[in-house]
Amino acid sequence: MSEESIKAAEPWTDDPAYRQGVVDLLGIVAYGALSAFERLADDGRMAPGLADKVHMATMAARQVAHFERVRTHLAGYDVDVMDAMKPFHAAFDAYHSYTKPKDWLEGLLKAYVGDGIAADFYREVAAFVDSETRSLVHEVLADAGHADFVVEKVRAAISTDAKVAGRLALWGRRLVGEALSQAQRVAANRDALSSLLTRTVDRPGMDLAAISRMFTRLVENHARRMSTLGLQS
Amino acid sequence: MSEESIKAAEPWTDDPAYRQGVVDLLGIVAYGALSAFERLADDGRMAPGLADKVHMATMAARQVAHFERVRTHLAGYDVDVMDAMKPFHAAFDAYHSYTKPKDWLEGLLKAYVGDGIAADFYREVAAFVDSETRSLVHEVLADAGHADFVVEKVRAAISTDAKVAGRLALWGRRLVGEALSQAQRVAANRDALSSLLTRTVDRPGMDLAAISRMFTRLVENHARRMSTLGLQS
Repeated sequence: MSEESIKAAEPWTDDPAYRQGVVDLLGIVAYGALSAFERLADDGRMAPGLADKVHMATMAARQVAHFERVRTHLAGYDVDVMDAMKPFHAAFDAYHSYTKPKDWLEGLLKAYVGDGIAADFYREVAAFVDSETRSLVHEVLADAGHADFVVEKVRAAISTDAKVAGRLALWGRRLVGEALSQAQRVAANRDALSSLLTRTVDRPGMDLAAISRMFTRLVENHARRMSTLGLQS
Repeated sequence: MSEESIKAAEPWTDDPAYRQGVVDLLGIVAYGALSAFERLADDGRMAPGLADKVHMATMAARQVAHFERVRTHLAGYDVDVMDAMKPFHAAFDAYHSYTKPKDWLEGLLKAYVGDGIAADFYREVAAFVDSETRSLVHEVLADAGHADFVVEKVRAAISTDAKVAGRLALWGRRLVGEALSQAQRVAANRDALSSLLTRTVDRPGMDLAAISRMFTRLVENHARRMSTLGLQS
C-alpha cells in the first residue's frame, strides 16, 4: 500500500493532523480538476473554430484523468475523494461564480492566469508532504500544452486590436484578486491544510518570513505570466 | 501503415468511392464523439449530486479519447479529421438543437436512446468496411458503463413518480424521430457513406430487402432499450 511506503520514508505520517492536511491538499486538487473540466468544456462552446473546440475538449478530458489519478491515490488511504473535496466546494464555486468569462479570450485568460496561480500555490504546499503525494501533485498540475495555446491566442488577439490588452489586463487583476480572496477563506477554515506550511517541533515547514516570501513568489509568477501574454499585471 | 494492411486484406480499397465512404463513416463517428462530449459535459451541470457529475465528466472524457483514436486512424490515411467531420456538422447540430434536454432525466435518456440508435447504425455500416476500421468503430462505440447508469437512474425516477414515465416515453419518441430524420438527410447528401451499405459488382453489401431488415433491427433495438428503462416505445 502507498501508506506503507510513506510511513517508511517519513515517520510523521502517523500524525492525524498531517494526514488531514494531505487529504485536504488532494481534495482541493481533485475539486480543482473537476472545476477545470467544467470550465474548459464551457469555454469550448465559445471557441471560434472546431480546431479550438477540439483543443478545449482535449484539455477538459485531461482534467478528468487528473481527477481519476487523485481519486485512486486517496482510495489507497481509504479516503473517498468525494469526502475530501467537500470542504472546498464553497470556495471554488464562489470563485467561479464571481469570475464568469464573458467571451472566449476571458475564458482563456482565466484558465492560464487563475489556474496558474492556484497550481503554484498547491506546488508550494506539496513541498511539505511525502514524496509520493508530491509527485502526484506535480504530475497532475503539469501544464499539458494549454499555456502555449493560450499565449498564442491572446497575443494574436492583442496584435489585432490594441483595446483588447487593456480589457484583459483588468480581467487578470480581477482573477487574481478573487483567487487570493478565496485562498484566504480556505486557509482560515482549514487548519490542517495551512499547518502543512508551518514548521512544527516534529516537522520542517516555513516560518512567517518564508510564508511571506512564498506569496511574493506567487505574485511574481503571476506577473511573469501576464507579461508573457503581453499584458500589464 | 494501416492502409497497406487494408490493401492486403481487401483489394477494393483502391476504389476512391469506398475510401470516401470509410472516411465519411469515421468522420461521422468522430463528430458524434465530440458532440457527445459537449452534451455529457452540459448534462453534468444538471446532475443532482457530485457523484453523478463525476460520472458524467468521466463519460465525457472517454468521448474525447474516442475522438483521438479516430483522429489518429484517419491521420494514417493522410486524412485530417477536421475535413472528415465537416460534411456532418449541419445534421448533428440540427439534431442537437431540436432535442435540447430540459432536465437531468431527459439528458440521460437522450444519451442512452439517441446515441444508442446512432451507434447501432454505425455498426451496421461498419460491417462493410475493412476489419481494422471495423474494430475501431466497434471499440469507439462500445458502451462504457453509461447504459447501466442511465437505466438505474431512470428506473428509480419512474418508481418514485409514475408521471415521469409518460413524459420520458414521449421524449424517447421525439428523439428517435429527429435522429432518423437527420440520418435520412445525411444518407441523401453523402452517397459515399450510403453506398457502403449497397452491394456492387466488386463488393458485398446489402440489397434493398436487407436494408429494410436493417432498419427493422434498429427500431427493435430501440424498443428493447426503452423497455429496459421501463418505458413505452
